[in-house]
Amino acid sequence: MTAASLDAWVAARRADLDRLFETRLAAPADGDPGRLLEAMRYSLLAPGKRIRPLLALAAAETSVPPDSDGLLACAAVELVHCYSLIHDDLPAMDDDDVRRGRPSNHKAFGEATAILAGDALLTLAFDWIAEAGERAARPQSFLAASRALAHAAGAFGMVRGQARDLGEPPPATLAALETLHAEKTGALFRAALEVGAHVGGASPDALASLARFGAAYGIAFQHADDIADAEHGQHADGARARLEALIAEACAAVTPLGARGDRLVALARALARRQA
Amino acid sequence: MTAASLDAWVAARRADLDRLFETRLAAPADGDPGRLLEAMRYSLLAPGKRIRPLLALAAAETSVPPDSDGLLACAAVELVHCYSLIHDDLPAMDDDDVRRGRPSNHKAFGEATAILAGDALLTLAFDWIAEAGERAARPQSFLAASRALAHAAGAFGMVRGQARDLGEPPPATLAALETLHAEKTGALFRAALEVGAHVGGASPDALASLARFGAAYGIAFQHADDIADAEHGQHADGARARLEALIAEACAAVTPLGARGDRLVALARALARRQA
Repeated sequence: MTAASLDAWVAARRADLDRLFETRLAAPADGDPGRLLEAMRYSLLAPGKRIRPLLALAAAETSVPPDSDGLLACAAVELVHCYSLIHDDLPAMDDDDVRRGRPSNHKAFGEATAILAGDALLTLAFDWIAEAGERAARPQSFLAASRALAHAAGAFGMVRGQARDLGEPPPATLAALETLHAEKTGALFRAALEVGAHVGGASPDALASLARFGAAYGIAFQHADDIADAEHGQHADGARARLEALIAEACAAVTPLGARGDRLVALARALARRQA
Repeated sequence: MTAASLDAWVAARRADLDRLFETRLAAPADGDPGRLLEAMRYSLLAPGKRIRPLLALAAAETSVPPDSDGLLACAAVELVHCYSLIHDDLPAMDDDDVRRGRPSNHKAFGEATAILAGDALLTLAFDWIAEAGERAARPQSFLAASRALAHAAGAFGMVRGQARDLGEPPPATLAALETLHAEKTGALFRAALEVGAHVGGASPDALASLARFGAAYGIAFQHADDIADAEHGQHADGARARLEALIAEACAAVTPLGARGDRLVALARALARRQA
C-alpha cells in the first residue's frame, strides 16, 4: 500500500467519523444546546487524529467494508477515548489546564460539567453500539463488541491503569512502564481492533490476530507519545528500540490475514515513521 | 399478594443480588484488592434497598423467572445507580460528605479514586449486560436492554437531569420539579423496568406497560424521598397528593398484565404506604 493511498483512506474515513460526530451531537433546532451538550461537543469535535476508530474501521475492513451501523460502533471507541481525556485532565486527576492547545474541558466548562460530559460520552458509546446491534443481522457480534470495549475501558483495563498511576512512584523499569501502558493505553487500542473485528464478522483466528496487533500497536503508540513529550526520559533509548520491536510484532500479528492486513501494516509503519 | 409474601420475595431477591455483587467484586486471592476495587466495593456493597434491580427482576418475572444471566443484566441497573451516587456526591457536584450514614466515597478514598470508581461501575454495567447477552438465546433482547439503560443514564436522561440541576434555581412549580425528577430519577427507574422486560422477553405491549409503570413509580419515589428529607418544602402538600396519584397511575399501567403484574402493584403500594 502506497503512502498516498493510505493517506486517502485515512482522510475519507476521518471525514466519515467527523460527520457522524457532528450529526449525532448536533445542537437542537431551538439553538440552545445546553452546557452539557456544549461540553461534549467541545471535546469530541476538537480536531483529533481519530486513530482508535480508524484502527477499528481498518480491522472491520479486513472482513467487509462496514456499513453505517458498523461505522457507528467503531466511532463509539472514540467516545470512550474522549471521556477518558476529560476525566484524566480533572484537577483531582492529572490536573491539566490545556488539551490539544485549548483549555481542557473543566477549564472551559467547570469541573461539574466536565465530569458529567465525560460520564455522558462514556454512556453514549454503549448506546451507539447497542443501537447499531439492534438493527444488525448478527446481534451477537455487537454484544461481543460492547463487551470488549467495556472490559478494556473499565476496572480491568484503562480505569485500573489510571488508578494504578495515581500516587504511585514512576515505573522503575521499562518493563514496569509497559505494564502500565498496556492498561492505560494498550487495552483501549486492543479493544478498538476487537470492536472492528466483531463488527466485520472476523473468524476467531482473525479476531485473535487483530487483538494481538492492537495490543502491540497500543504500547508502541504510548512509547511514541512519551518520546515526543520527552516523558519517562530515563527510558528514552529503550523506548525507541521497543517501539520498533512492537511495530514489527504488530505487523507480524496480521501476517496470517495476507493482503487483507495491508492497511493495518501501513498504519503501524506510519506510526514508526513518525518517530524515525 | 400479601405483605408477607412480598417481603419474602424481596428478601430472597435482595440476597441473590447481594451475593452476585459480593462474588463479582470479590477481592483477588492474593488479598490486595487495590484502592479502585476497594472503593467500588465500599459503595456497591454498602447496605442498600436495591429497589431498581428488584423492579427489573419483578418486570422480568411478569414473563419468566430470570436465570442467572437475567439476574446479571438486572443487577447492572444497580451499578449505574451506585456510580451516579458516587459522582453526585463529589465536591464539584452536590458536595456531600455522608452517604447512607457513612463517609461518601470521595471522603473515604479521595476524589480521584471516587471518580474512577464511578467510571468503573458505570462501565461494568454494560460489561455485565453484554456478557449475559452473549450467552443468551435472544441476544437482541440484551442489546435492547443495554440501549435502554444507556439512553436513560446518559445525556438523554440522568446525566442531563444532573446537569440541569447544577447551578439552576430550585424549580418554581411542582410541574417543573417533576420534569427534573423525571430526568434525574425517573429515567433510570423506567430503564430498570425496560431492562427487566427485555430480559424476560416481554411483548411490545407488555414492554410499554412496564415502562409506563417505571416512569410513574420513579417520580413517585423521588416525591417520597423529598417528603422524607423535607426537601422542596414549599411543594410538600402537592407532593403527597401527586405521590398518591402517581402510584395509582403506575398500578393502572400494569392492569393489562393481570395477575402477572401483582408483584409490581404490591411494590408500588408499599412505596405509598411508606409515606402514609
